Amino acid sequence: MATLGDMGLSAAINILSALVFLVAFAILRLQPFNDRVYFPKWYLKGLRSSPTRSGAFVTRFVNLDWRSYLRFLNWMPDALRMPEPELIDHAGLDSAVYLRIYLLGLKIFVPVTLIAWTILVPVNWTNHTLAKSDVNYSEIDLLSISNIPLGSQRFWTHTVMAYAFTFWACYILQQEYAKVARMRLHFIASEKRRPDQFTVLVKNVPPDPDESISETVEHFFLVNHPDHYLTHQVVCNANKLAKLVKEKKRNQNWLDYYQLKYARNQSQRPMMKTGFLGLCGEKVDAIDHQTAEIERLSKEIAEERERVINDPKSIMPAAFVSFKTRWGAAVCAQTQQSSNPTLWLTEWASEPRDVYWPNLAIPYVSVSIRRLIIGVAFFFLTFFFMIPIAFVQSLANIEYIEQKAPFLKPLIEIKFIKSFIQGFLPGIALKIFLILLPTILMIMSKFEGFLSISGLERRSASRYYIFNIVNVFLGSIIAGTAFQQLNKFIHQSANEIPKTIGVAIPMKATFFITYIMVDGWAGIAAEILRLKPLIIFHLKNFFLVKTEKDRDEAMDPGSLGFDTGEPQIQFYFLLGLVYAVVTPILLPFILVFFGLAYVVFRHQIINVYNQEYESAAAFWPDVHGRIISAMVISQLLLMGLMSTKHAALSTPFLLALPILTISFHLYCKGRYEPAFRRYPLQEAMMKDTLERAKEPNLNLKAYLQNAYIHPVFKGGDDDEDEEEIIEKLEATVLVPTKRQSRRNTPVPSKVSGDSSPSLLDLQEKGRP
Amino acid sequence: MATLGDMGLSAAINILSALVFLVAFAILRLQPFNDRVYFPKWYLKGLRSSPTRSGAFVTRFVNLDWRSYLRFLNWMPDALRMPEPELIDHAGLDSAVYLRIYLLGLKIFVPVTLIAWTILVPVNWTNHTLAKSDVNYSEIDLLSISNIPLGSQRFWTHTVMAYAFTFWACYILQQEYAKVARMRLHFIASEKRRPDQFTVLVKNVPPDPDESISETVEHFFLVNHPDHYLTHQVVCNANKLAKLVKEKKRNQNWLDYYQLKYARNQSQRPMMKTGFLGLCGEKVDAIDHQTAEIERLSKEIAEERERVINDPKSIMPAAFVSFKTRWGAAVCAQTQQSSNPTLWLTEWASEPRDVYWPNLAIPYVSVSIRRLIIGVAFFFLTFFFMIPIAFVQSLANIEYIEQKAPFLKPLIEIKFIKSFIQGFLPGIALKIFLILLPTILMIMSKFEGFLSISGLERRSASRYYIFNIVNVFLGSIIAGTAFQQLNKFIHQSANEIPKTIGVAIPMKATFFITYIMVDGWAGIAAEILRLKPLIIFHLKNFFLVKTEKDRDEAMDPGSLGFDTGEPQIQFYFLLGLVYAVVTPILLPFILVFFGLAYVVFRHQIINVYNQEYESAAAFWPDVHGRIISAMVISQLLLMGLMSTKHAALSTPFLLALPILTISFHLYCKGRYEPAFRRYPLQEAMMKDTLERAKEPNLNLKAYLQNAYIHPVFKGGDDDEDEEEIIEKLEATVLVPTKRQSRRNTPVPSKVSGDSSPSLLDLQEKGRP
Repeated sequence: MATLGDMGLSAAINILSALVFLVAFAILRLQPFNDRVYFPKWYLKGLRSSPTRSGAFVTRFVNLDWRSYLRFLNWMPDALRMPEPELIDHAGLDSAVYLRIYLLGLKIFVPVTLIAWTILVPVNWTNHTLAKSDVNYSEIDLLSISNIPLGSQRFWTHTVMAYAFTFWACYILQQEYAKVARMRLHFIASEKRRPDQFTVLVKNVPPDPDESISETVEHFFLVNHPDHYLTHQVVCNANKLAKLVKEKKRNQNWLDYYQLKYARNQSQRPMMKTGFLGLCGEKVDAIDHQTAEIERLSKEIAEERERVINDPKSIMPAAFVSFKTRWGAAVCAQTQQSSNPTLWLTEWASEPRDVYWPNLAIPYVSVSIRRLIIGVAFFFLTFFFMIPIAFVQSLANIEYIEQKAPFLKPLIEIKFIKSFIQGFLPGIALKIFLILLPTILMIMSKFEGFLSISGLERRSASRYYIFNIVNVFLGSIIAGTAFQQLNKFIHQSANEIPKTIGVAIPMKATFFITYIMVDGWAGIAAEILRLKPLIIFHLKNFFLVKTEKDRDEAMDPGSLGFDTGEPQIQFYFLLGLVYAVVTPILLPFILVFFGLAYVVFRHQIINVYNQEYESAAAFWPDVHGRIISAMVISQLLLMGLMSTKHAALSTPFLLALPILTISFHLYCKGRYEPAFRRYPLQEAMMKDTLERAKEPNLNLKAYLQNAYIHPVFKGGDDDEDEEEIIEKLEATVLVPTKRQSRRNTPVPSKVSGDSSPSLLDLQEKGRP
Repeated sequence: MATLGDMGLSAAINILSALVFLVAFAILRLQPFNDRVYFPKWYLKGLRSSPTRSGAFVTRFVNLDWRSYLRFLNWMPDALRMPEPELIDHAGLDSAVYLRIYLLGLKIFVPVTLIAWTILVPVNWTNHTLAKSDVNYSEIDLLSISNIPLGSQRFWTHTVMAYAFTFWACYILQQEYAKVARMRLHFIASEKRRPDQFTVLVKNVPPDPDESISETVEHFFLVNHPDHYLTHQVVCNANKLAKLVKEKKRNQNWLDYYQLKYARNQSQRPMMKTGFLGLCGEKVDAIDHQTAEIERLSKEIAEERERVINDPKSIMPAAFVSFKTRWGAAVCAQTQQSSNPTLWLTEWASEPRDVYWPNLAIPYVSVSIRRLIIGVAFFFLTFFFMIPIAFVQSLANIEYIEQKAPFLKPLIEIKFIKSFIQGFLPGIALKIFLILLPTILMIMSKFEGFLSISGLERRSASRYYIFNIVNVFLGSIIAGTAFQQLNKFIHQSANEIPKTIGVAIPMKATFFITYIMVDGWAGIAAEILRLKPLIIFHLKNFFLVKTEKDRDEAMDPGSLGFDTGEPQIQFYFLLGLVYAVVTPILLPFILVFFGLAYVVFRHQIINVYNQEYESAAAFWPDVHGRIISAMVISQLLLMGLMSTKHAALSTPFLLALPILTISFHLYCKGRYEPAFRRYPLQEAMMKDTLERAKEPNLNLKAYLQNAYIHPVFKGGDDDEDEEEIIEKLEATVLVPTKRQSRRNTPVPSKVSGDSSPSLLDLQEKGRP
């Protein structure tokens, strides 16, 4: 058991390392040559440019003004100073609402901490249960529920506190949900004209032997939304083209690198090997080779581009359909189009930046099967991920290495190295897996067929959260792998499970306090240092950058990373809620995390991150739902714990808590969630009417025409003229309104075939 | 244990009683004076009238043609003869699809029975496990899985059969879902013009200090659906009025009864007591009293009607909004109107007959709370209903009666009466409860706030099904009350539960066979006899009927009763699926049930039942879902059973079955359910266009004006002129389109206040 002394030492180490990170950051950020690492957001906004070329050479790279070092924590008040509306304007609503999650943590846990310390800690402390018993205990346990004798009436305090904390958390959650919903509606209402307001993504366009996809789409919407349809843009399968463009870009980078190398040392031309990773194969002149490669790729790209534009097979059965009014788009996105519910599926188009292009053409049946496969795969990943890792670990022991690679034996036998390997190696496989986990989860989400990057991130986040609960939270409380837990739980009675876990909870408080200090204090402080982007920027800057534009590209502002960041915060919510009643001493540590993380991420959002997309806080229902689930988990575990304390009367009294919490969740879901999923017609109509009054002569068609063209057709870096391509694409993709293409095809088509022209005529005639 | 002989006896008794019912029916239905009991549907359709007055007096009441008695089972082929399209035309889609549930049972279980008897029965039979063992067994068990030795390889047969049966059932279910969805779409597409196609129910209209509900609704829809809004009809709280009208009707009946009595025996005027149920109180002249009562009620009704029409408080914040096109209504029903998702809630209006008027004004928050309350109440009803019944039973024993009512002692002490009471009394409380259960469940659903009768019936049906599973199925398998089961299960490991139940299943086969014969054979045969409507009709006919119109009203055709009938069928699906692999001998009994019930209900639907409403088979997703849940239950129980049979290898092999079944369900849900919940725009547009071409001058407004007026304002039986009332109502409820009512109210309203008139103007100007 960790004593208070151990805890103090651990705290000291972690606070010290956090301070080291902060000081290092304070120094590094003041150096002009790091400016683009620590303030990329301002560069992207065009509000900051490279340090002036004038002045001494040294001052262009190092800040020699000693006074600026004195104010090394100045960034903190700076970060807090920007008011929220300005922050929304500066970084988008997603980022501003993301910060509110940390604030929400503070709002919930500051009063909870105060009350817990004024009421629960004295109630726990003034007992002598642990002192009298023989068990090994730490000082921290004296402040926890463990110190209360079995069957004591004092457990009523904990029961009442559990109710109080639940009501407080629900109250704050409700307030926050209402606030975020209002912010979202206000944000959407005050937004400028954006293509996605007018556009709907249509999937599963049925094939028609008689018409192209583009014609089918146009005729369908001309018939069924005659007053609102404006234009559409079919989706091309440009995945191969995108791959080629990416390859060309990489070669271009290498060419730049070799040219720069040659320019610096003109005595010899740089050479390279053509084989795998440049490690084997023929040795050739690098500049010539890369130039040839680029030429080859340029030709291939041109061919592929022609093919994509002209080959009807590369047109996928999906389209972005734009409407004349927001009202029309809102109607189309929310209604069912065809009597076959798997055809003509409509949904709001994500904004162009947010579209995940490769998934646009997955058919309906395939999506169901993919969901099933990924569901099963995720189950196995969560509960059985230890099996392959244990296998790798069994391979990576010293005896095995000595056996397979005898020449390493003398080296390994050195005592220091041996103990290092023995201590380090078994963990490395697990560590690598945990680092790769978000990527694995993201690949799973991509395979599942989500259509927007924000959707992918939300799904990955919820999976990551479940993985954390099972393997980090439960895994730490009950020793053993998740699979062993599962096996144990299956053979246990349903109401034994919360007991088993609940009993272990107070004992693990010190472990989680250490965890919070390492991951939540030092980890967050390390975040602000941006070590990886710092190194990469300087490497790129040295090897690749020739022009100012190259330098702009070398800058990697990164983004918030909802899929990894949000589950981390949620884990602290879970810890706080679980330990609030049981071991209140843990709460201040969580408060420090929330406070520090809020400041750090506010700084990063203002100065660094550049969001890839704007979903207008569409993630909030997920955040809310996960906090609710943490509350229910904490309540069940508290019930389990209490039932072992012979507090017979207060335990059934707790039963109502999860029921009330879940009802509260359902209420919030009904009350606020539609604001995050659907677009109210009233709002749409209001914006339409205002716009029509302000700009009666707006050419909306021109505005929307090219909004949803695959990014490879827009990529600016190419030799070919961009506009020319878009024009070509239009020429193929768009059809004239009159069905002249039908002249040579007398067979009536299935969908909008023989009946649709007459319907169209009828509509024209029938309208009063 | 029941032997084959016992079973045979039981079968003989039940078949005999079923035959007695059928013969009695055959005789009774041929008597002309029963004509209105057994063929009311044809009377309602106007295709049949009372037996001609001509002819002998006797033949008007009794059928003397002996030949017609010979063909006493002729109604069966007659019932099967009507083809399905004609049936849909004759009785509606709901009834036709309801019959398909029985057909579905036959489609699933006929091949399953054949395969089970050719493969499973020989596999089970050719063992001697039970013969060798000491346990008491019946001959039926020799054909069941119990006869297979532990750990035998023969269990593979059962595993493979479980897969085969699951795939077959899924295949048939999918076919049926597709077929019903097609039928529904075809039915909706070929329907005549109906008010509900154009109408949307709007709930939670926000209060406006400045405008009446009617004005608020009109202005909101004129702004937000300018091209489609036609008219609307606010909802009045006429519950009290409806009650008064009902009371008056009852008094009228009594008056008729006394007048008829007086007419037959003019020697003395009939007398009645005014007190409770006519048992106590003052004795008065009955005819005078009833006439006075009716006069008083007529006056009260007139006053209340005035009040409802003129008092703004009786207008509820809900309205039926009608649109110019089906397209407009489909759009409005499927979209969100306001940015506050709890205001302006829209949903398809049920057809006028299907609306459940009293629930139209329950606000959003109240609905959530009501759901929660009913959820908890239903839980207690299911698991604790035995507690009050046991209490009543404890009161109703002989000693208690003798103690409380000593004067009854001599009577009770008679041996025959004593044993009768002892055998009968304890059961009577339970029996009364079970008879009342559907009513209790319906009251619960009404309290929950559903807005249509079909919705109420669907919810009651699903509750009844759950109650049946817990208390009839599990309660019969495991002795003891549901509460004892619950307690046992909570203290048991999660995977012990299927084992406990699974092991008991083969032992209960004989019990369920008897159950099927009593409830499914004799019960269904009794259904066709319509004993209760028969008696009530003749009583009414004798005491009340004066005119032909009265006789029409005395006729009670009844309706299908989805809320009790469907759970009964589902229970047979559950039994069949559970026992298909375990004890295949049960299957033929189920086949007889499905076959007999199909014929009987087909006959009833053709000749008797008159559906109250038409929901176009909206219940099918529920039916499908419950069969799927029965499949999953059967699979889990089979796994539990197999795991006790030491068939270690085949048990995990079964694990995939529930996963596959649930995935199949999710697939079907996504593929077909939207066809039952939403109205595709393509269909709406097609019908609109056709109609506009056919009837360009249709006055839709006049057609829709009075479609959704509360039935008490339409009731034909009143002295006041109906049209006059409707006119009055319109005058109050409808407002002129121009906002002249705002002249004296300068305060801007919250919802469509200051901004809306200008918006309206803008829209008019801004339109190109």
